[in-house]
Amino acid sequence: MPTNRVEAFSDGVFAVAATLLVLDLHVPGGDRSLFVGLADDWPQFAAFALAFVVIGIMWVNHHRLIGNVEGVDRVLLFLNLLLLMSIVLVPFATALFAANLARGGEASQLAAALFSGSMVFCSISFSALYSWSSLHGEIVRAPHAAPGSLRSVLRFGLGLFAYSIALGLSFVISALLILGIHAVVAAYYVVDQVAGTRG
Amino acid sequence: MPTNRVEAFSDGVFAVAATLLVLDLHVPGGDRSLFVGLADDWPQFAAFALAFVVIGIMWVNHHRLIGNVEGVDRVLLFLNLLLLMSIVLVPFATALFAANLARGGEASQLAAALFSGSMVFCSISFSALYSWSSLHGEIVRAPHAAPGSLRSVLRFGLGLFAYSIALGLSFVISALLILGIHAVVAAYYVVDQVAGTRG
Amino acid sequence: MPTNRVEAFSDGVFAVAATLLVLDLHVPGGDRSLFVGLADDWPQFAAFALAFVVIGIMWVNHHRLIGNVEGVDRVLLFLNLLLLMSIVLVPFATALFAANLARGGEASQLAAALFSGSMVFCSISFSALYSWSSLHGEIVRAPHAAPGSLRSVLRFGLGLFAYSIALGLSFVISALLILGIHAVVAAYYVVDQVAGTRG
Amino acid sequence: MPTNRVEAFSDGVFAVAATLLVLDLHVPGGDRSLFVGLADDWPQFAAFALAFVVIGIMWVNHHRLIGNVEGVDRVLLFLNLLLLMSIVLVPFATALFAANLARGGEASQLAAALFSGSMVFCSISFSALYSWSSLHGEIVRAPHAAPGSLRSVLRFGLGLFAYSIALGLSFVISALLILGIHAVVAAYYVVDQVAGTRG
Repeated sequence: MPTNRVEAFSDGVFAVAATLLVLDLHVPGGDRSLFVGLADDWPQFAAFALAFVVIGIMWVNHHRLIGNVEGVDRVLLFLNLLLLMSIVLVPFATALFAANLARGGEASQLAAALFSGSMVFCSISFSALYSWSSLHGEIVRAPHAAPGSLRSVLRFGLGLFAYSIALGLSFVISALLILGIHAVVAAYYVVDQVAGTRG
Repeated sequence: MPTNRVEAFSDGVFAVAATLLVLDLHVPGGDRSLFVGLADDWPQFAAFALAFVVIGIMWVNHHRLIGNVEGVDRVLLFLNLLLLMSIVLVPFATALFAANLARGGEASQLAAALFSGSMVFCSISFSALYSWSSLHGEIVRAPHAAPGSLRSVLRFGLGLFAYSIALGLSFVISALLILGIHAVVAAYYVVDQVAGTRG
Repeated sequence: MPTNRVEAFSDGVFAVAATLLVLDLHVPGGDRSLFVGLADDWPQFAAFALAFVVIGIMWVNHHRLIGNVEGVDRVLLFLNLLLLMSIVLVPFATALFAANLARGGEASQLAAALFSGSMVFCSISFSALYSWSSLHGEIVRAPHAAPGSLRSVLRFGLGLFAYSIALGLSFVISALLILGIHAVVAAYYVVDQVAGTRG
Repeated sequence: MPTNRVEAFSDGVFAVAATLLVLDLHVPGGDRSLFVGLADDWPQFAAFALAFVVIGIMWVNHHRLIGNVEGVDRVLLFLNLLLLMSIVLVPFATALFAANLARGGEASQLAAALFSGSMVFCSISFSALYSWSSLHGEIVRAPHAAPGSLRSVLRFGLGLFAYSIALGLSFVISALLILGIHAVVAAYYVVDQVAGTRG
């Protein structure tokens, strides 16, 4: 099967998931002044920016991965659906994180853990997609050169590792620090990919 | 007429419907702890996962069906719209099921019946699309080989049969069991399709 | 300019608008039994089905119109945006109609008028798009044959005429009858188009 | 990398963002008559129309820009993501503006400033995308002719200038006048682009 409809469907899901993030931004109500309302709601803006960048990076990686694939078999189709499910959950995990980030205590810890867990889910499904397409050379257009491939494996592994660490730390350190870890990981991926182009 | 815009529009509807499922996931509010809130709301997660897989399977089947079609006539266009309408209703049927699953009594029975009925609607419109494209050989690119075709008919028939049974049983057994039946049917389709690729 | 991105963007808007209609379907709450709740809310289901079919027909027509166009100039681009704006308003007009249909009195009359007015807006922007592409023969791939063109003009004119009548009647007859008129017009278009294929 | 998936993803985000604007239109509730309710809520309709036109213009410009690009490098990919993030924020900025436009005082000033700021964000990310693609001639299909390029730079600069002025004035003049300025700028862009085609 050709890859074009997989790309179209995937692009649709990525685009809608990224855009639905805006629905998590609420116009402040109540008696507060607008300025105070927006300032109080800063976690929703931080979480929005983080989640948008994360979905953007995932899309860039998906773009590359499917671009290397010659054709799509059923297993790949379902692994792709699994990845898309993990992407679709990001706006919910983000809203949950944003709503509980500043509450402190058990709630913010659990919300940070679930956000991190959602990233772990994305990483695992991405790795599964990557591994399957790498192992079935007949469907790969440009078989990844060994060093490049190794680098990719390391890079994916790093993400999975970092997100798992964040998940574990969610119950130990503050939710704000967990947010910071995710921001650093996202920034690393952006810089790494942009550097990879020009280098 | 060429099939490309039908695919684009259909992919858009499938992608948006699949992604809108996330809007049925609500961040727990009220006095409950976040953990208790999420645990209480388990039906929404179960229904989300089920509905996402169902829409994914429908998309895979749609992908295959339209991939075999050479061109699109008006009847096919409207049968496709009927199918898309049944897909668009899935997030609503899912939300209804999730909201009433744990309430028990008449409400959960009716909600289970409506979810099952929504699956029956999907099956019927899918079968109509399939039958029309099979009967009008001039628009089919690769006429389905007799055994494959028979197998496909059996498979579609099985879905319609299983969903109708679930619909009938909705008023007899508990909504939880109905959820289980749908999960088994979805799992069967995933396994059957993946096995079909490699076999 | 080629038409492919205009098609992609338009398909996206049509697909999202059609799918967002499901957000107007609300899970019944309150003390009512689920059955009574759903039965009370019948206007939302009727309005959903009508609006979905209307958007579907508009998409089919758009599909045909752009399919006949060789290239896109700026005017066409902006007329297309005007049409898309009218399409995007359909879910709002539908929700307004559904919420007020059964209230009776001035509210249901105004809601029926606004729904009809939204259809008039769609018709006018569609006619503008059609006229522009017809008048600028250099951008039309297959210039409409005179009889076909006349028939198309009559058909578009009929829609504009029927919707305008419905708009005028909104303040005279009951909102339910206005709903019926729109259903008949939609059914006519479906039958006419399907008949046009096979004839 | 080819541009097709960048276009598909971008078209998806533009289409969803434009269509999500309809979710900012609320069916009037409460004791008011429907007519009074809709009349009271006029800011949401004005803001909807303005935001739809703005997103439409941005899409047309994006269409042109990417149409001139031969291939996409990573930097362009991320600059494009930045632009898309600014587009995704438009429905939120619009809802905020609409909700506070008629309240007067500090709230409407701040909301006007944030809406203007959101336009400044769009302009800056657009300019960054444009500059990058212009400076890296190897990825540009049809290098912009000097006069055209100068005109484009002037036109982009004008937008950034006008939006910055609107941002600055937000704290001085009424939010209604700010809305008017944005409407004039949008109208200018539409007229300028349409005139550019036929001239």
